[in-house]
Amino acid sequence: MKKLAIYPGTFDPITFGHLDVIQRACELFDVVIVAVLENAAKTPLFSKEERVEMIKEAVKSIPNAEVDVFDGLLVEYAKQKGAIAIIRGLRAVSDFEYEFQMALMNRKISDGITTVFLMPHEKYTYLNSSIVRELARLNANVDDFVPEFVAKKLKEKFKKN
Amino acid sequence: MKKLAIYPGTFDPITFGHLDVIQRACELFDVVIVAVLENAAKTPLFSKEERVEMIKEAVKSIPNAEVDVFDGLLVEYAKQKGAIAIIRGLRAVSDFEYEFQMALMNRKISDGITTVFLMPHEKYTYLNSSIVRELARLNANVDDFVPEFVAKKLKEKFKKN
Amino acid sequence: MKKLAIYPGTFDPITFGHLDVIQRACELFDVVIVAVLENAAKTPLFSKEERVEMIKEAVKSIPNAEVDVFDGLLVEYAKQKGAIAIIRGLRAVSDFEYEFQMALMNRKISDGITTVFLMPHEKYTYLNSSIVRELARLNANVDDFVPEFVAKKLKEKFKKN
Amino acid sequence: MKKLAIYPGTFDPITFGHLDVIQRACELFDVVIVAVLENAAKTPLFSKEERVEMIKEAVKSIPNAEVDVFDGLLVEYAKQKGAIAIIRGLRAVSDFEYEFQMALMNRKISDGITTVFLMPHEKYTYLNSSIVRELARLNANVDDFVPEFVAKKLKEKFKKN
Amino acid sequence: MKKLAIYPGTFDPITFGHLDVIQRACELFDVVIVAVLENAAKTPLFSKEERVEMIKEAVKSIPNAEVDVFDGLLVEYAKQKGAIAIIRGLRAVSDFEYEFQMALMNRKISDGITTVFLMPHEKYTYLNSSIVRELARLNANVDDFVPEFVAKKLKEKFKKN
Amino acid sequence: MKKLAIYPGTFDPITFGHLDVIQRACELFDVVIVAVLENAAKTPLFSKEERVEMIKEAVKSIPNAEVDVFDGLLVEYAKQKGAIAIIRGLRAVSDFEYEFQMALMNRKISDGITTVFLMPHEKYTYLNSSIVRELARLNANVDDFVPEFVAKKLKEKFKKN
Repeated sequence: MKKLAIYPGTFDPITFGHLDVIQRACELFDVVIVAVLENAAKTPLFSKEERVEMIKEAVKSIPNAEVDVFDGLLVEYAKQKGAIAIIRGLRAVSDFEYEFQMALMNRKISDGITTVFLMPHEKYTYLNSSIVRELARLNANVDDFVPEFVAKKLKEKFKKN
Repeated sequence: MKKLAIYPGTFDPITFGHLDVIQRACELFDVVIVAVLENAAKTPLFSKEERVEMIKEAVKSIPNAEVDVFDGLLVEYAKQKGAIAIIRGLRAVSDFEYEFQMALMNRKISDGITTVFLMPHEKYTYLNSSIVRELARLNANVDDFVPEFVAKKLKEKFKKN
Repeated sequence: MKKLAIYPGTFDPITFGHLDVIQRACELFDVVIVAVLENAAKTPLFSKEERVEMIKEAVKSIPNAEVDVFDGLLVEYAKQKGAIAIIRGLRAVSDFEYEFQMALMNRKISDGITTVFLMPHEKYTYLNSSIVRELARLNANVDDFVPEFVAKKLKEKFKKN
Repeated sequence: MKKLAIYPGTFDPITFGHLDVIQRACELFDVVIVAVLENAAKTPLFSKEERVEMIKEAVKSIPNAEVDVFDGLLVEYAKQKGAIAIIRGLRAVSDFEYEFQMALMNRKISDGITTVFLMPHEKYTYLNSSIVRELARLNANVDDFVPEFVAKKLKEKFKKN
Repeated sequence: MKKLAIYPGTFDPITFGHLDVIQRACELFDVVIVAVLENAAKTPLFSKEERVEMIKEAVKSIPNAEVDVFDGLLVEYAKQKGAIAIIRGLRAVSDFEYEFQMALMNRKISDGITTVFLMPHEKYTYLNSSIVRELARLNANVDDFVPEFVAKKLKEKFKKN
Repeated sequence: MKKLAIYPGTFDPITFGHLDVIQRACELFDVVIVAVLENAAKTPLFSKEERVEMIKEAVKSIPNAEVDVFDGLLVEYAKQKGAIAIIRGLRAVSDFEYEFQMALMNRKISDGITTVFLMPHEKYTYLNSSIVRELARLNANVDDFVPEFVAKKLKEKFKKN
């Protein structure tokens, strides 16, 4: 049976930190589904379609990475997909607590799915999507943080607005 | 090719927290080697042989768990075994920092091996081997924290001393 | 003179974690007032009346627990009630800092009232009202986290909306 | 060449904690520019002009402190001013992470400017502008936390609203 | 029935931070026993007798504070004394984790005794006995950190050695 | 008057993380004294003379860096040298608390000297001397972490032992 893992997130937009986690996860599991959360609390900068498109472009050279969209309870979605693991990237102490809270809640609801924490490369320790958006909004260069086509998309987005 | 992971530690002695991590790791990987660190800085309470024996007893019902002893650099040992991952249990914030330091150092030395963090059940959040030893030394009941035969071994150890 | 303590909060809704703190506080003090904060920054899911009603139901078997509503500065309210202590539940590191900040501010304003931190049972370590609301919104089972009548109220709330 | 540092912030309003940092920074550097961030995400309580006016009043006895307003990317502003350092006050663990994130991002963009962390006096450990605003809103005395004229301004602000 | 609490520690030596906690605890409980741990892992600077003597002197004006020595398991000692609470001072994040670990272990062993965390005054946030010993060893003035007779004792101790 | 800062430490041995801090400090201050602590609690791997020699070699191209040895109370030494600042490198949360404790104690003793925290490059986030010694002991390559001549010295040290 294929070992399948889910890597859920908002990916607004995908960064090199996310990509580093995806690459590592794809070495550990047979299939990794990058799952875009549809109805997050905050309005995202990029639409669901734009986020999926950017992730697809970013992972196109990784054969066992798939991209999907989900809504509702993460563990329900993971169970339905037949996943044995949920992948989470861990960066800093504040992440750590929130992630643990989520992992424990998921376990309470479905004990069969294990949350697996991977650490992005230390050069991405303090990188996240909201900082990338803020830098792009201020017209700063974000080429060190996101793939080229994401940087271009960000530039367009803030030109329009 | 079989996906093999190493779960290194001192295991002085093995606790229900360790066992919880081993069980989860064994669902994710084809083989998990529980690897007892031989020359730790501090003198352990149990000899290398005693620790290995207790782990073997504890994991005897898990078919894809193996027990081994290692010395020297963890990543060298992992490479030599053909491991794709090093398993670490994460409990609290203090763990987190030390573990990250180790994970990053390991990655610097051998980028091919990913450190995978698993979270023991929340009822083991604040459990570790040194507390178990301290409780046993004070003649307290440790049946909630370690398997029965470990509890017995602890009792003997502190009777002798 | 009776030793009175205040346990302030939003309680939107009350969880088993809160109840665990209330039970412990009621063993330490002669009277414990569970004090619902009226004008919090965010709009609560449940009205003040609903929150009070649920707490009253939850503590009805604890003779020295009372329920009240307050507005304005917590220490002023505590002083007016003749309290010698403010009870706070501590869960994780992020709580810790916010709670300390509040405790120190309260002490600056009225040194006679001590903030007392109690730790909910470890099975409630990562439980809070906002996660319960989120789970209920996604139609997940919350019976492990809140009393039955609160679970029912949550279900109704999200059916209506 | 004069050694110039920037102390950026929202200062909504300036507190004794900020002033403590400014005084220390002014002993280390030849010139310190207190730089008010114009377009922060949240709507401030005080207008840009009010915040600048209060800071000017607060630092009027410090000869090498200047007050300015900036918009856009902090490191670009700092470079343009010829700064060698960005000053940040550090209070607690949560600060620490956010500040480090910012410092690393700034360094990625312009490696020539060093972020310098100073610690306010421990009596200001848990003090910040948002707590001061909250206390003032609840009509509490804030004389221990802000200069007299700021306390007066706060009182006026909440009377009007 | 009198409500009794235990405040355990090494008190090597007692500091103003400990005293602040004792004073607050004595307002909350009918009796507070300051309990000196006899066989700690490390060799203390002061003998058990010296530590008890210094605490007795420090608390002589607090009528409901008692001083005692204990050995073995804290919760067993607390149960035997009829305590309903164990008092712990909380200072910083590192404290927090260790204390929680202990509190949970104590609760596992005897659920009837609640651990109560009190926060010393913020001017003692970063104060502990080991720093006081280090300062005294280096012949620094410790009058801001310990009572006068403790400072004198420290001076003698390091003159002798 | 020249602005002088002290960068104190054990430097057992000096790493690229230390060097990064020294280079940044030398841009901020007119003179930076790298001050080797003589009588630390633990026996160092390298003698005082060896540590000084390695630092001198490492900073020989930085004109305003000096190397010295000190004993006793840091703030007394700093005062005697006419320093206006003590430099500390900050890496992670655990550092943070210890450093703050020290900074506050130093300030209590001598308010005229400010502790300045600098952040080493993120690639050195989890690097420290004890990990370098451990890696060298296990015969691992440490060329990414220390200058070449330090790596050589480490090799010799562990060959001898």
